[in-house]
Formats: sequence, C-alpha cells, structure tokens
Amino acid sequence: MHGARGDGRGTRKQVNGLMPLIVQKYGGTSVGSIERIEDVARKVIKTKEAGNNVVVVVSAMSGETNRLTELAKQMNPNPPARELDMMLSTGEQVTIALLAMAIEKQGHAARCYTGAQVRILTDSVHSKARIQEIDAKVVTEDLKEGRIVVVAGFQGMDSSGAITTLGRGGSDTTAVALAAALGADECEIYTDVDGVYTTDPRVASKARRLDRITFEEMLEMASLGSKILQIRAVEFAGKYHVPLRVRSTFDDGPGTLITYEDENMEEPLISGIAFNRDEAKLTVLGVPDQPGIAGRILGPVSEANIEVDMIVQNISQSGLTDFTFTVHRNDYEKTLKILQGINDELGAREVYGDTKIVKLSLVGVGMRSHAGVASTMFEALAKEGINIQMISTSEIKISVVIDEKYLELGVRALHTAFELDDEDAQVSIEGKSSD
Amino acid sequence: MHGARGDGRGTRKQVNGLMPLIVQKYGGTSVGSIERIEDVARKVIKTKEAGNNVVVVVSAMSGETNRLTELAKQMNPNPPARELDMMLSTGEQVTIALLAMAIEKQGHAARCYTGAQVRILTDSVHSKARIQEIDAKVVTEDLKEGRIVVVAGFQGMDSSGAITTLGRGGSDTTAVALAAALGADECEIYTDVDGVYTTDPRVASKARRLDRITFEEMLEMASLGSKILQIRAVEFAGKYHVPLRVRSTFDDGPGTLITYEDENMEEPLISGIAFNRDEAKLTVLGVPDQPGIAGRILGPVSEANIEVDMIVQNISQSGLTDFTFTVHRNDYEKTLKILQGINDELGAREVYGDTKIVKLSLVGVGMRSHAGVASTMFEALAKEGINIQMISTSEIKISVVIDEKYLELGVRALHTAFELDDEDAQVSIEGKSSD
Repeated sequence: MHGARGDGRGTRKQVNGLMPLIVQKYGGTSVGSIERIEDVARKVIKTKEAGNNVVVVVSAMSGETNRLTELAKQMNPNPPARELDMMLSTGEQVTIALLAMAIEKQGHAARCYTGAQVRILTDSVHSKARIQEIDAKVVTEDLKEGRIVVVAGFQGMDSSGAITTLGRGGSDTTAVALAAALGADECEIYTDVDGVYTTDPRVASKARRLDRITFEEMLEMASLGSKILQIRAVEFAGKYHVPLRVRSTFDDGPGTLITYEDENMEEPLISGIAFNRDEAKLTVLGVPDQPGIAGRILGPVSEANIEVDMIVQNISQSGLTDFTFTVHRNDYEKTLKILQGINDELGAREVYGDTKIVKLSLVGVGMRSHAGVASTMFEALAKEGINIQMISTSEIKISVVIDEKYLELGVRALHTAFELDDEDAQVSIEGKSSD
Repeated sequence: MHGARGDGRGTRKQVNGLMPLIVQKYGGTSVGSIERIEDVARKVIKTKEAGNNVVVVVSAMSGETNRLTELAKQMNPNPPARELDMMLSTGEQVTIALLAMAIEKQGHAARCYTGAQVRILTDSVHSKARIQEIDAKVVTEDLKEGRIVVVAGFQGMDSSGAITTLGRGGSDTTAVALAAALGADECEIYTDVDGVYTTDPRVASKARRLDRITFEEMLEMASLGSKILQIRAVEFAGKYHVPLRVRSTFDDGPGTLITYEDENMEEPLISGIAFNRDEAKLTVLGVPDQPGIAGRILGPVSEANIEVDMIVQNISQSGLTDFTFTVHRNDYEKTLKILQGINDELGAREVYGDTKIVKLSLVGVGMRSHAGVASTMFEALAKEGINIQMISTSEIKISVVIDEKYLELGVRALHTAFELDDEDAQVSIEGKSSD
C-alpha cells in the first residue's frame, strides 16, 4: 500500500519522470534532538531509496517555540504579532538546516528552504495567517535534480514580504498545501500515534486503528478533540483532495489514510467515537419564549469572545422555555457571570451551570442513510443507566452530553453496540492515545 | 559635532525632506540581554528625536552565534556552509525582532528586516559572502513614513535566494554598505570602546582618543590588531566615502570620525602606534642566494595554508643570505617543522625561530612626505636600548620587530617622541583598550 506507488490510482502531476512524489511532515517531538533528526533523515532517505521524490516539512524542535515566545514576553508581555512572527519563524529555520545536514551526512543531496523562500504566500494576519498561494517552482527544480527538499513548516510571507506564521500546528497545513501545489501522490503526517483510532485506546481498550477514514469524518474527529491533525490542514486536504496519511514516527505501520467520498468506498456505518472533556454546560431556566430570546442570551457571550459549541432549546410549555449551551471549561466562570448579569433583564427564573459533563459523539458518513443510528445509541446508553442531558445532531455526527463519570462506560457501550471492537486488542496500549 | 547635522558638509541624498540619515550599528555585547536591547532602543530614539532618520543594524545576542555553531557541529563536525548560514542567520533575526519590540514599547514606530528582505545581495561564498548590491527601497519607504528601521547585520542572500553570511564581524560591513546605499550622512559603529586611540591605553597611559583618523590610517590600525572595526567594513567605507564614526555604547562621547583625504584636512605626522603580540619570527640562516630561493622557502608554508606577514631578506654576502619572516604564533610549530623538513634540500645552514617578539608600527598619512619619521623612530628606540630585529615599511606605516619584553617601553618612547601624549590623561584607563 505504501512507499513507491504502483496501485494505479489516478495519475497526478509527475515531477520527475515516473517517480511518485511523497510529502512528509514531522512535528516538534519527532525532531526534538540531534538523534531524532538523524532518525528522521533515515526515514526520509528510505522513502527516497524506495523510488520516490520526497519533500519534507518540519516544525521547530520541541520546546523551541515556547522558548522564543518567553523571550519575546520578557521584552513585551503582549508582543506585537509582526515581530513575534519574525522571531518564531527562526525555530523551523534551525530545524530545516539541521535536517538537511543530517541527510547530506547520510549521503544524499538535500536543499532546505524557509516558507518565504518557497514562496508560501499568505494573508497578513500575523500569528494565524492563511495560505493563499504557493509558487513551488524552486522545489520542482530541486526534485528534478534528484535532491531531497526540506521546507520549514508553520511559516510563510505576505505580499509585502513580511514573515507570517500559521499558528500552532500550522506545519500540518504547510505540508498539505505543498502537497496540493506539487500534485503529490501522498501527504504523510508523522506523529506520535500510529493512526486514527475508533476511539481513545486509553478509554476503550478494544479501540481499533482505522485503515481508512473519510475526510468529513476526520474533520468531525479532529474538531472533537482527537488532536492528531490540525483541523485547518484537514480542511485544506479536503478542498484539494490531497491523499493524506497519518503515520507514526516511531514505528513502520501503515497508519490511517484519509480518503474522499468520490472514491466510492464501502462506507461503514460508524467510523469512530469521539469525546470532549473540556466543555461546561450552562442553562437559563424559565425564560419567556419570545422571538429573539436566543440572540439576547448569546449576544453578550459572543461579544466577550467566548465560543459556544452545542446549543439546545426545547419547545416551550406555558410560554416559558429552557435555553442550554456549552462553552469551554476555561470560559465557564466568565460566562456564568455574564448570564447572572442579564438574568433580570431576560426575566429568567434562574441561571444554572454544570462543569462535570462530557460530550460524546458518534461519527460516520454511513449514518446519513441510516435512521436507526440515534435509537441504537440512546438504547445502548440507557441500558447502562446513563442519562442523556443534551442531544445535537449533524449529517454525519450525533453528540450527546452526559455526566462525566459515565465517560468510559458510555464509550465502551457504544464501541460494542456499533461493532467497532477489536477482539484481538491488547489491554495495554499506552502512549497510543489519539487524545 | 554629532546628532542632527548642520555642518554644511556636502549634501547627500535626502530620504525624508531635509532630515539627515544616520545608520547605527550595535554589536553582540550591546544587545546581549533584554535590558541592553532596551538601552539600545533608548539611544536610537534619542537620535531620532534629535531630528534624524535612523536605520539600526544589529548583531546576534552575544553567545547566540556560538550556541548555533555548536548545535550544527553536534550534527556534523564539519557542517556544510550553506545550511550553517541558514542556521546562523536566525541569531540576528531574533535580535531585530526584540529591538523593534523595544522601540515600539517606547512609543516609536519601527519595522525590522532580515538581510534578504532588504535585498542585500551577495555572492554565493557561504560563511564569508561579499555584498554586491543593495536595493533598499523598502527601507526608504519606511523612513518616509517616519519609522525607525531595524536591519539584521551579518547576512544577505545570493542571486538564487539562498541565505548567506558575511563572516564574523560582518555586521559592521552591513551597516557601512547600507549607509552607502542609502547615502547616509553618517554611519556610527557602537562598540565597547569610546573611539580610536593613539595606542592601547593599557600599554601607554597617556594614550589619546583621536577625534579624527583617515580611512587609510584606520585600515592600517585595524589590520594591526586594533580590533575595533572589521577591516572589510573600513575598506567598504573607503570605497564609497561613507562618513564613519566609532562610538561607545556605554557613554555619550563623540567617538572617532574616520575621514577621507580629499577633505583636505591638516594631517598630523603620526596618528597612532599599533602593535601585535601574536606573531612569531622564523629565519633560514645561510641559504644560497639564488633566484627562486624565496619561493622555495615560502611555497611549502603557503601550501599548508599558513599566512605570512612580514618578510625580510638582506643583501647577500659571500653568496649566502638569511631569510626571515613572521607568522601567527599558533602556526609557529607547524612552520618550524616544515622549514626543518626542507632544510637540507635548500642547502641552508640552520633554521632558527623566536616566539618572544612583538611587532610595533607607526601609522600616519603624514609620513608620506616626511622622510625623517623612520630615523626619529629608530633613534627613540635606540635611546631606550631597544634592538630592532626586523624592519618593513609601507607608504603610511613603519613596522619593526623587537623583543617582546620591550613592548611597553617602546610604545611609550614612540608615543612621546611623536608628541602624541595627552598630558591630562589619567593613569587608569581600564576597559578602554583598543586591542
């Protein structure tokens, strides 16, 4: 499946004769020391020697971005974003040089480039710039010459030539964007887990690694706290249909391939179970059921830059309704105070909150055409005595809020109910969490 | 004399109306900590508020270049120059960001740029690239907008866009080259001494700070171990007649202005006395006085990449001659071995060496037209019983080699003989050495 590609998948642009092109991305932990960078060089060369062109995207060595941020904060607790980007971009610049040195030491030709040098053009929103265009001519030239190309992740430049950064995790986006621009045959994201799992193996020991997952499912899994891939990278991959694979830096497994629905695969009903322990729930009780009431409640919350996730409002009885929503736990106190401040103005009976909750989600493109998923889910939870506090649904996801103490029990019940269990799974899978 | 210029000197390009333009350069020690960078910001702003446009060139924070070099050497004891330049250039990139932050914190608008961003184009000789061209349009734009511009010293890019470095001390060259390209009214090099002295104050307590020194004298002083200014920077300044001033980062004195002869100044006879303790002397005694003998002696030495400084060969008597030259003390043992190896082949009587020597030089453009300088020099030394072992002369310099134990005595004797003494000088001038 992996390595030199001969599986007849639709031909993409061929840079160097008939050699397939692989873009690989290694994060901060994978390049965290001289020894680990040498290991990465070995993996890169192995891919090259298997008959591929290789472009490698790397992050700053682990800890380096924090060190630079601290230095900037010593100068200014609120460092200006333009100058901060100038500083932070040096982190990857050191890594690309070291990796190129390592590759050359191991006998292969390499060239390294900053984001600006391969003309990764972004908007001017410093610290969270978005890629607009890549003119990777210089990369193509090097590949033609047989060189391995090393590119700094996380950074680019705007139209004025200023250095920008894409925000934490932006190296994933760099890799995917480069893969799209170069028409790569595959973009491999190397991380400390060996793929995407049906759920967190630390919670359900029978969690199974998925060989494949659709782009939309991955998007739902990523946004639900399975922090394997930066969500913007997944979106980018979806937009340009970049074949994306999550693999482990530390073993040689095939990982998980992110695919696109038009590839006409047999869709499983449910791909995975995600959960999020970081949310808190707030309810405004007994508020008059009038038009505009939701806006009057959420307006002041959003003005305070607090992001709201789930929102539920039941049908009213006797002209009063209950309005419930969730926010990040860090914003709980602030949100509670805002609601208490507008309580009288709303004419509400009471404001009530709960931080001891967890959100649990079933994800799967297959559920689009299967009405029975929700009822199977609710039955499985009920059988374990788990009360559902909130429900919200999308086309390929059903989320429920339950008491946090039932998290593990709920995940395992659903994992079994939807036949995701790997009967051969070992009980101990430490360090392979997808959380 | 200094600050906003109103001295009627020939008008140079005016970037911003009638405001003079000052380029300032601060080295690694001057920007060695957050607090020192804040001090530099204050000095820069003071110059700006005195009515000047200001461009600031900075080096990496002291120690940073060594840290990066060590990291590279962990990967490869002989790191490839191209990748090493990529790494080293991050040192100044951090400083420019911090200085821009400091200036903005103190209420002035600032913009910072890498060498590549202000298009400092160099050749492709990594680690000791030479500046070929500067297209500083972006700097001019910023100055017009009233911003202070901060530029990374020591670095540039070649025509392919690769990052290059100019070698140790290259930030001086960056500052001078930018001053030339922008037509600056003055280029100020800030360092830990308050100017150029007639000689090292640690050796002669009556040493005097020079208000002015000619470019050619500075060149001789710089190459003779008065390590205030990088010699390439002085050459560059001479080529474009950039008014160059050496000043102290740590006090407010006027420093020393480097001038050009066409400014028609009254030239003093002698400007200063330089010396070099780092040389060793080697003599091949009783070698046949045949054509090509100098080449047969020095050929193997230069093949071993050993630099030779002074060379003296006396007229021969009885067909035999003595051939003497000096090398850096670090190369003494190696050179001695080479000479011993070719001794028989040369038909020489003996090879003899001495490391306990010092070179002492009088420098001054005035001596061109004064034949008496040499005799005054030799008499002054003879009066103190100092024997002269070697002599070599150039148009504006006379160098002698003497026993190193006479260094201080010799310098003081010459300092008095050529009327350089500052009769008001304090005996203790520690920390103001020009060595």
